[in-house]
Amino acid sequence: MLGPQVWSSVRQGLSRSLSRNVGGWASGEGKKVDIAGIYPPVTTPFTATAEENLHKLGTFSLPRCWSTVSLAGFVVQGSNGEFPFLTSSERLEVVSRVRQAMPKNRLLLAGSGCESTQATVEMTVSMAQVGADAAMVVTPCYYRGRMSSAALIHHYTKVADLSPIPVVLYSVPANTGLDLPVDAVVTLSQHPNIVGMKDSGGDVTRIGLIVHKTRKQDFQVLAGSAGFLMASYALGAVGGVCALANVLGAQVCQLERLCCTGQWEDAQKLQHRLIEPNAAVTQRFGIPGLKKIMDWFGYYGGPCRAPLQELSPAEEEALRMDFTSNGWL
Amino acid sequence: MLGPQVWSSVRQGLSRSLSRNVGGWASGEGKKVDIAGIYPPVTTPFTATAEENLHKLGTFSLPRCWSTVSLAGFVVQGSNGEFPFLTSSERLEVVSRVRQAMPKNRLLLAGSGCESTQATVEMTVSMAQVGADAAMVVTPCYYRGRMSSAALIHHYTKVADLSPIPVVLYSVPANTGLDLPVDAVVTLSQHPNIVGMKDSGGDVTRIGLIVHKTRKQDFQVLAGSAGFLMASYALGAVGGVCALANVLGAQVCQLERLCCTGQWEDAQKLQHRLIEPNAAVTQRFGIPGLKKIMDWFGYYGGPCRAPLQELSPAEEEALRMDFTSNGWL
Amino acid sequence: MLGPQVWSSVRQGLSRSLSRNVGGWASGEGKKVDIAGIYPPVTTPFTATAEENLHKLGTFSLPRCWSTVSLAGFVVQGSNGEFPFLTSSERLEVVSRVRQAMPKNRLLLAGSGCESTQATVEMTVSMAQVGADAAMVVTPCYYRGRMSSAALIHHYTKVADLSPIPVVLYSVPANTGLDLPVDAVVTLSQHPNIVGMKDSGGDVTRIGLIVHKTRKQDFQVLAGSAGFLMASYALGAVGGVCALANVLGAQVCQLERLCCTGQWEDAQKLQHRLIEPNAAVTQRFGIPGLKKIMDWFGYYGGPCRAPLQELSPAEEEALRMDFTSNGWL
Amino acid sequence: MLGPQVWSSVRQGLSRSLSRNVGGWASGEGKKVDIAGIYPPVTTPFTATAEENLHKLGTFSLPRCWSTVSLAGFVVQGSNGEFPFLTSSERLEVVSRVRQAMPKNRLLLAGSGCESTQATVEMTVSMAQVGADAAMVVTPCYYRGRMSSAALIHHYTKVADLSPIPVVLYSVPANTGLDLPVDAVVTLSQHPNIVGMKDSGGDVTRIGLIVHKTRKQDFQVLAGSAGFLMASYALGAVGGVCALANVLGAQVCQLERLCCTGQWEDAQKLQHRLIEPNAAVTQRFGIPGLKKIMDWFGYYGGPCRAPLQELSPAEEEALRMDFTSNGWL
Repeated sequence: MLGPQVWSSVRQGLSRSLSRNVGGWASGEGKKVDIAGIYPPVTTPFTATAEENLHKLGTFSLPRCWSTVSLAGFVVQGSNGEFPFLTSSERLEVVSRVRQAMPKNRLLLAGSGCESTQATVEMTVSMAQVGADAAMVVTPCYYRGRMSSAALIHHYTKVADLSPIPVVLYSVPANTGLDLPVDAVVTLSQHPNIVGMKDSGGDVTRIGLIVHKTRKQDFQVLAGSAGFLMASYALGAVGGVCALANVLGAQVCQLERLCCTGQWEDAQKLQHRLIEPNAAVTQRFGIPGLKKIMDWFGYYGGPCRAPLQELSPAEEEALRMDFTSNGWL
Repeated sequence: MLGPQVWSSVRQGLSRSLSRNVGGWASGEGKKVDIAGIYPPVTTPFTATAEENLHKLGTFSLPRCWSTVSLAGFVVQGSNGEFPFLTSSERLEVVSRVRQAMPKNRLLLAGSGCESTQATVEMTVSMAQVGADAAMVVTPCYYRGRMSSAALIHHYTKVADLSPIPVVLYSVPANTGLDLPVDAVVTLSQHPNIVGMKDSGGDVTRIGLIVHKTRKQDFQVLAGSAGFLMASYALGAVGGVCALANVLGAQVCQLERLCCTGQWEDAQKLQHRLIEPNAAVTQRFGIPGLKKIMDWFGYYGGPCRAPLQELSPAEEEALRMDFTSNGWL
Repeated sequence: MLGPQVWSSVRQGLSRSLSRNVGGWASGEGKKVDIAGIYPPVTTPFTATAEENLHKLGTFSLPRCWSTVSLAGFVVQGSNGEFPFLTSSERLEVVSRVRQAMPKNRLLLAGSGCESTQATVEMTVSMAQVGADAAMVVTPCYYRGRMSSAALIHHYTKVADLSPIPVVLYSVPANTGLDLPVDAVVTLSQHPNIVGMKDSGGDVTRIGLIVHKTRKQDFQVLAGSAGFLMASYALGAVGGVCALANVLGAQVCQLERLCCTGQWEDAQKLQHRLIEPNAAVTQRFGIPGLKKIMDWFGYYGGPCRAPLQELSPAEEEALRMDFTSNGWL
Repeated sequence: MLGPQVWSSVRQGLSRSLSRNVGGWASGEGKKVDIAGIYPPVTTPFTATAEENLHKLGTFSLPRCWSTVSLAGFVVQGSNGEFPFLTSSERLEVVSRVRQAMPKNRLLLAGSGCESTQATVEMTVSMAQVGADAAMVVTPCYYRGRMSSAALIHHYTKVADLSPIPVVLYSVPANTGLDLPVDAVVTLSQHPNIVGMKDSGGDVTRIGLIVHKTRKQDFQVLAGSAGFLMASYALGAVGGVCALANVLGAQVCQLERLCCTGQWEDAQKLQHRLIEPNAAVTQRFGIPGLKKIMDWFGYYGGPCRAPLQELSPAEEEALRMDFTSNGWL
């Protein structure tokens, strides 16, 4: 077991310095990127207008403090980025802006999933061009009744074949109504340009099974939420994409450190205090909750695009309670 | 109760001659369109290419026979139109082509739903410009956890306010994981530019309740599938959008006629024989099943865009059996 | 199509005079019972005690008015009878008491389902001995993950083989989390001692398919709730077991008459007004709601056994509104 | 963090020597029992008969080896004990027999849940009389639509008030379709005679939240399955009731030891190898799978009561593979 200090430098060495120079699998280099660590899924800032469904893309400035905590990087255009509400050009612009605003030695994982295979390929290529280090590709879902393992394997294989950057699978059943089946993940883990998976379903038995069955591949699993981050580390995940890290970034990184250095008792205490705040900014109040708490913490949350609605006063009160009762506000 | 002959001319008079001259609610005329009757949701023809996720939009020619059966019109860009796989310009092109190919005195209902309110408004306006008579707007669903009645009422009100053509609500939980709540439907039925709803959920108790609670509005409900078409007529629906009508158009229209003229015993016998074929081209085998059976019936089905996959030989066999065992092949 | 007057006598002739003299399939007569018509699922009366989980079986007197409306009979120990809360001897005593209280020329369908096949057989035999005309057997459900079609076919076949009275299948997914699969129903419909099915799931497409695929058997389908009674008749069901008939018995029988005589427009109007009251006494407020409304209508509803709780004042208010807004209170 | 040797004696001291001398909360002693550790949920042995739904209770002899591994005790009449298939007297007889067969210094947790509060109270009292150390009470579920937090709190409070032995809450949504809500658990944790909970749902975020919110009570959480045992320990659970421990008892206890002594890397490797075998004897193949593997491992599994069916040859093959591919057969 590594001690805390050792671990820290190891992690820096492993996942930071590999950095952005990925080059791309297609170009023959065959390098894989190390995606271990904590990523906030960045929200998209909109400037409020009188007509709320016309909100324009706002100024994009990642809060300074983020550079001081040991984040592995940023996820842009994940579910928390309101990507389904953006045009294709807005999606690329957001990636481009975050690339410029963020430290050079951190990873930018860009959500490039679309419903069709072709559109996903095109979006992935474009995102690579504007600076994404890896593409995080959500499962297509509108025709979920026909999204068999075979169909999903076909989809991801095409995307990975044609992507100049590594691909990260992304399963988020709360949004898609679809779990990427374990057998499909195992098959896809053998593709040289598929480096890992973000699993937001919260079933850590499943996460453990995926780690177990892909152990001969160089395949990395990220927990999709801070609520089951510690349990995911226990089962073999290497990091997490955590909405909560947008406001409690230092704390989520602290939880990572405690898990990676084997300080499980302290990890448990910290994990416990993060469950309710995490639920508040994900399944309970969604992006409107996350943006509201960002406002309260001194970041820019701002409005959501319609049809997402602002929280009601009662919801705001409950949101506040989920943070205060755990000592975070 | 109307006799069959009388009914026929009545229906022609009511829903056909109103036809396309809707003018638009926004323009101040305040006319409502009568959407009663049967609509096939048109599939989108693609030309097969070696690279199946690059399939181009194919030649669009509505089969001749469709003009001889008493269809009320066509739904373009419904779930069966693979709309999530098309670009915005392709979506408009498909509407434009069907408009040109179809009889002038039939209605074109165009699916214009997008995830954001703003994009839905823009798509709706554009579809009106290329010839849609009414817009059929699916519920946004990616953030279904936040799609409360309030959010959905807000969304549809904005769209209806700004749409130059009447709006038809569209609830299809098999695809969206979301039922448009009855209370939201009742509220929205009072909007002067919302004329009705397509409900594909299959819960006819719900359909009956919606008809009952909107009876003081001029609000029309269409069944979203041929499997529960007769039951929907019994409860007060005025028509249906039926994938099965792409191949058994005459039979679905015959079922409509039997229901509208009170010939319930014959209607029941016909309805029974349509349940399995209908399930085959919807929940069981989806669009790949529908396109395959279109090929078999002499229409152009053709390939689907990826990630939708072709049927396996075993699935094809089961599809065939669902039609032959009911006497349709 | 039959006229109203004709129908009335026909129905009396068909389903009433067959009456109780069923004799039993096992005894070699091979007669089948006609189960067409409307049945209230009788609630179990308890006398309130200070200790609410000790409520004793109360006096059992079927309201007089029930003899004046054309009910086909009574269901005893259905889901509304709180059967899971009764001991085996209480279950038999309830059947015995209702048998004595009810008119001789109506059918008594007794719920005899238990989790094990053996217990179900024993309960079915006992219920026949205390006067049940047919046994209504709910699907076992605690091990629903293993309740395949094969397991369920095996279960019902054993029960039907050994039952001295005809068996009615009973599928109620709201309570059991399990739909009796259509293929199992079709297989079981061929058993000479299985006469029909009560389907409470509310999917009338499924009901239509079952009627269609068992049309060569003498197999009868009953709707399990008044909310989809008319639609079920349209699809070929022959009656219903309707909680609502405990208070609006005349109205539910009127709906039956309108459907059976082809008066679909009037049927629709009546059906519409029954949907909300029906939902109130079933999925919305359950047995506590049903018993409360029975109290209000002058019958004896009384308390439920724990853990079922009384309605809150707000729930009572909503219950009342569901009846008043439709003109029933 | 405790070393392995220390831990071993500590655990023995903590949970073993408290042993059976619980005395009962009602008797005024107010002692609580320590339920930490691993429990196999004992299957009920039946002797095969020609008529499989008549299987009699078989000879009950706990395999010798169980006394050599450090099990905390045994769960009798859990879901794996086929309790819904037993008569009340059989349920008591099984508890009595296991009590006699098992070591005196281990705990016997008896499943005493019934649908009604009254029956549950009576069964709990009777089980205490035949030697149960604590009662494990499953949520009532047939009327799940009315099983609000208030109803469940009422139910468990009554049972705990009247039980002479400590009560363990039991939530198993795969069987009941119902999750005992977190707020109800938190309220119930304050009852002096409710000592803990078995949670079989597999949502470890929920388990963590329960541990967190009951930290001021003396309340213990057991994982309901070996698949998420390690993750549950990480979140603060103190043990598990694991079907898999019926055949891999030593391995599950080894996993417990690794977790309790902070050897997380080894724990992870072992946990990984237990996920598939565990799934095989629970959600995948259920009790028939568990009994079959018990036969293969040299214990007595024997037949299940109907309607549970034996595994098909293909299922047996898959079951075997789940064990062999992980090195257990």
